[in-house]
Amino acid sequence: MPINERFEQLTEGAVEAIEKRILELTPDEPASLYEPLHYIHEAGGKRLRPVLTFLASRSNPNADWISAGTAVELLHTFTLIHDDIMDNANTRRGKRTLHKKYDMNTAILSGDVLIAHANQALAEGKYNDLHLMLSEFAKGFRLVCEGQALDKEFENSLTVTLAAYYHMIDLKSAKMLELAGVLGAYAAGGMYVEEIRNFAHNIGKAFQIRDDLLDLTADEALFGKTKGGDIIEGKRTYMFIKMMDRFTELSDAEQLLLRKVQGGNARLNDVPKVEELFEKHGILDEANKDIYYFTKKGQDSLSTIPEGTYKEGLMLFSDYLLGREI
Amino acid sequence: MPINERFEQLTEGAVEAIEKRILELTPDEPASLYEPLHYIHEAGGKRLRPVLTFLASRSNPNADWISAGTAVELLHTFTLIHDDIMDNANTRRGKRTLHKKYDMNTAILSGDVLIAHANQALAEGKYNDLHLMLSEFAKGFRLVCEGQALDKEFENSLTVTLAAYYHMIDLKSAKMLELAGVLGAYAAGGMYVEEIRNFAHNIGKAFQIRDDLLDLTADEALFGKTKGGDIIEGKRTYMFIKMMDRFTELSDAEQLLLRKVQGGNARLNDVPKVEELFEKHGILDEANKDIYYFTKKGQDSLSTIPEGTYKEGLMLFSDYLLGREI
Repeated sequence: MPINERFEQLTEGAVEAIEKRILELTPDEPASLYEPLHYIHEAGGKRLRPVLTFLASRSNPNADWISAGTAVELLHTFTLIHDDIMDNANTRRGKRTLHKKYDMNTAILSGDVLIAHANQALAEGKYNDLHLMLSEFAKGFRLVCEGQALDKEFENSLTVTLAAYYHMIDLKSAKMLELAGVLGAYAAGGMYVEEIRNFAHNIGKAFQIRDDLLDLTADEALFGKTKGGDIIEGKRTYMFIKMMDRFTELSDAEQLLLRKVQGGNARLNDVPKVEELFEKHGILDEANKDIYYFTKKGQDSLSTIPEGTYKEGLMLFSDYLLGREI
Repeated sequence: MPINERFEQLTEGAVEAIEKRILELTPDEPASLYEPLHYIHEAGGKRLRPVLTFLASRSNPNADWISAGTAVELLHTFTLIHDDIMDNANTRRGKRTLHKKYDMNTAILSGDVLIAHANQALAEGKYNDLHLMLSEFAKGFRLVCEGQALDKEFENSLTVTLAAYYHMIDLKSAKMLELAGVLGAYAAGGMYVEEIRNFAHNIGKAFQIRDDLLDLTADEALFGKTKGGDIIEGKRTYMFIKMMDRFTELSDAEQLLLRKVQGGNARLNDVPKVEELFEKHGILDEANKDIYYFTKKGQDSLSTIPEGTYKEGLMLFSDYLLGREI
């Protein structure tokens, strides 16, 4: 059976269950608050995080994974809405962002209330370890905010080191997947919490580097973003930071090009030149190697878990993330 | 012993304990996120809500009221920061608002992370009823957002009924005091939860009507706001809505004045005229009567609680709110 088919078999119904619970948690009134949220929820998304919560809870078939998975997905959606305001983004998942379609106040408040819904989902969960789970949720939430703050600080910084980059993606990206996994393990009664934590955290790092890479290599239509958008925005991506590390090795023309990117002054016709530069210096290969490295490291964290459907689901999840074309 | 002195005696150390915990929950880095929060926390405030949490928990001297009280105070601070963005307010507690002193993105993110800290505070609490407490927290949080949405809807509405006003203040103001009280009762082990709920909810209503009234009657220097600020902003206050209810009884000149307020076109020199109009039609008296009515109703909710220091503290709290000059 092809990987994708087996993955779909093992996660059957998970996305639908999460979307059902999200809908149940979303009232209709006041319309100024909830119409925008219905708009966002209907836009869908891959629901990767609650799928991981589901898989991480499968050591106990009776685990209430939906409450925890919903909490993580709503926290994730909240970060998208508020990040889009801060980045002044126009589109998300192929639709207009909330603050563009409505207005900024609406987007702030609709984002806010998602956390109330996430808290409600957690509170309704059948959990013996709610203290620990809420603590994990609070920590993940706090670190995601700190990661976003660092990401914004980077925009005005000329010297972002690779260490700083890794710290930022640890907080902003890896923590959310880690939270999704750990809450699943707790929902199941606390089996394999630390294995899942290390697994999800490393997979999360690989996921973010791949996201940086996909900005250049993904199919535009499938990815839903303009190729090289990060370059035009002057984002401090994995590739950009790695290239800056070798700044002194570059020719004058290459240095000029990189400074243009750094200053946020690159245009669409600079994108192929920058891509060529990355390619020439082996940066794209390095990105692929690091994606592989962190995925492998994550998968190795599961070595103490016996072979079986539980482990298979998690391994497939990481393969799916590693191999995703969109 | 004068009321204020006895109240201070019964609540001694509560504000300090809350401010200490808030400080413990607030890191220093990343500075772009936390410097603004230190600025906000140092601005202080009356800390009325955690003081109520404290008093509502005094049926059990060992109750961990600080964790719950901190969660409520941080939720309250979060609403102030985000409401100030939405209202485009310049000052708060005599200091520049966060989005004015820093920028909007900073204010959004600093507000957001307060909820993570509030969740953390709750998670660290020594509570048997955490499921119930988190559910109360989530509900209070959700309703406060809904109340804010209604309040913003009112700005563009010409016909706000008194029923709609009461519904809005139920959500936006009364719920937060209710949450503060109820979490205190749960922290104590669940004694008197419903008595405290009704008490705090009604006191909260009285508190909001008094807040509307203080816009006209308070000492400007002590209140820290311009007298008649609500009139100039065209806010749908208790007095304004009551006056609009009798619109057809008014003279042409009076109707014109009220329309000016409604359209947000009133100026500072209109304030005494509007005050006189309210006075002439007995609206200020009605406000005072309703403040008294809801305070009494709240206090009556405690009738099943035996006389003693516990009840005395709660009664004094409501007297203090009712009598506050600032």
